[in-house]
Amino acid sequence: MRLRVAVIGAGSWGTTVASVASHNCPTVLWARNPEIADEITGARTNTRYLGTSRVGRELRATAAMSEAVAAADVVVMGVPSHGFRATLELVRDHIRAWVPVISLAKGLEQGSLLRMTEVIAEVLPGHPAGVLSGPNLAREIMGGYAAASVVAMEDETIVCELQAVFKSRLFRVYTNQDVIGCEVGGALKNVIAIAVGCCDGFGLGDNARAALVTRGLAEMGRLAERLGGRPLTLAGLAGLGDLVLTCTGELSRNRQVGLALARGEALAEVLTRVGHVAEGVGTARTAAALAARLAVEMPITREVASVLYDGKAPRDAVNDLLARDIRAERSR
Amino acid sequence: MRLRVAVIGAGSWGTTVASVASHNCPTVLWARNPEIADEITGARTNTRYLGTSRVGRELRATAAMSEAVAAADVVVMGVPSHGFRATLELVRDHIRAWVPVISLAKGLEQGSLLRMTEVIAEVLPGHPAGVLSGPNLAREIMGGYAAASVVAMEDETIVCELQAVFKSRLFRVYTNQDVIGCEVGGALKNVIAIAVGCCDGFGLGDNARAALVTRGLAEMGRLAERLGGRPLTLAGLAGLGDLVLTCTGELSRNRQVGLALARGEALAEVLTRVGHVAEGVGTARTAAALAARLAVEMPITREVASVLYDGKAPRDAVNDLLARDIRAERSR
Repeated sequence: MRLRVAVIGAGSWGTTVASVASHNCPTVLWARNPEIADEITGARTNTRYLGTSRVGRELRATAAMSEAVAAADVVVMGVPSHGFRATLELVRDHIRAWVPVISLAKGLEQGSLLRMTEVIAEVLPGHPAGVLSGPNLAREIMGGYAAASVVAMEDETIVCELQAVFKSRLFRVYTNQDVIGCEVGGALKNVIAIAVGCCDGFGLGDNARAALVTRGLAEMGRLAERLGGRPLTLAGLAGLGDLVLTCTGELSRNRQVGLALARGEALAEVLTRVGHVAEGVGTARTAAALAARLAVEMPITREVASVLYDGKAPRDAVNDLLARDIRAERSR
Repeated sequence: MRLRVAVIGAGSWGTTVASVASHNCPTVLWARNPEIADEITGARTNTRYLGTSRVGRELRATAAMSEAVAAADVVVMGVPSHGFRATLELVRDHIRAWVPVISLAKGLEQGSLLRMTEVIAEVLPGHPAGVLSGPNLAREIMGGYAAASVVAMEDETIVCELQAVFKSRLFRVYTNQDVIGCEVGGALKNVIAIAVGCCDGFGLGDNARAALVTRGLAEMGRLAERLGGRPLTLAGLAGLGDLVLTCTGELSRNRQVGLALARGEALAEVLTRVGHVAEGVGTARTAAALAARLAVEMPITREVASVLYDGKAPRDAVNDLLARDIRAERSR
């Protein structure tokens, strides 16, 4: 039996994942905007988010949630963290019992500080929750370039079934059972990318950047472990892989935020221009709050949050990081 | 009591480490070439390796091994892996009992397939052996930029003493007790950088590069673990940190080898032009042999060795990597 897939959200990544899945399974993509749904089904393009790239021939799109979800055996949530819960509540009205829900979002919920699979557990208790996460620029995958990713679920059987939904020769999907580690990786890498942008903007050099990426990964690992995840997951595609992509790509919006801060641009201006689409800006606040609540040492995240929300000068943040005591590499 | 330090080898990195240490401890640098020794002591420059950068005011250099080593409480080996054993045999004639020996080399010994601390144990049994390793471009450190590194030794007390030899406000030296993991990281990152150069040369994209770095780190971790190291060490500065630096810096000679191979340059030509200073070229062969002997799955290393030594076309190597079966992210 081939699983029927519903992808919820027709942004660049949701559309790309739906296109990939449509080569393996009957797939329906839900777009909030009916015009986008019509364009995808009719012209096989989503010009607003993916330019002239063509989606898979078998992919259908709809703006009717019931049409997307009612028959689905798997629901994939391609919605950013700030709209995740509200959209999931729309899904709830139509989803069948026991259907697994996979999150594509890379952030934490503001206020509640919850991971997206925790939001799924609250809104849809009884539905297995997982994530698809990794170093995946949508436009490269639509362009036919090779990429690798991770699908994570606690249940080993379900995760192997879901691997078959997403994988292709060029999109190499590994399985992992550490959902928490994968989610922490996807969310926190955006915060570290802001710090790396700052570092690059100040011209601090390649050594400092490599150190910042590494120490950033170390604090991501500490948070994941404290939440019940495995630190080694952070050394994988959903942690390190995505972090490397986000910290070295010229196009990363989160890194752009850091570069702008280092140039001395006014915070309000940076936030208006790029902040609203850079998930790391919100995640810095939620992650810093989570770290404080759980007493996890996350100095880079804390400094990024201080710069973004407490008016701390980026240069002072860098100096404070350098002034920290140095101990064993893996101490807490 | 301040430890007296001898650094053996006045290349760019040996000279830089000696200069850093000379701010903390009485330090003598041994240069094979007496003219370089005289220049360092007299003019405080090493123009052949470090241009116009000035070394620490207190640093003395000598071409007499006895003068460098006889009084030393710590010996630091700043010699590449291919000359490591022969130089260590010169050190043996002068070193005092029990003095720790720290390796700066990033490679494995050809033929024996030994790590440098294993060579130290063979040549100088009874001397504690360790490494200093991390994402450290010499010219940035000489230029006064911040960097981080790891000093690793099995003995917790000794490693903390040695941390004080090397650290400064801008050179942040963490301690680690996993010598094997740090050595595997330093050696293998050069091999992965060749693969990444190939990938970039073929224009395979940012997703593929991030995946290659991550899967490269995973196979480095497998080798380290099989040798008795801890896989998490590879997620630290001596593994991931150094890997990120080597795989993204334009100046990495190992990455240049990969770029040249992708351009279709004849192997002999690449090896003549950059191969003799790119440690990854030799390490690809020793690491592939070690992986085969120990039955450790290292597909990227094996493909790099096949391209370098068996005449395999780089494009075929890429296709064979993509054709591999995909399983759990951390399977063996």
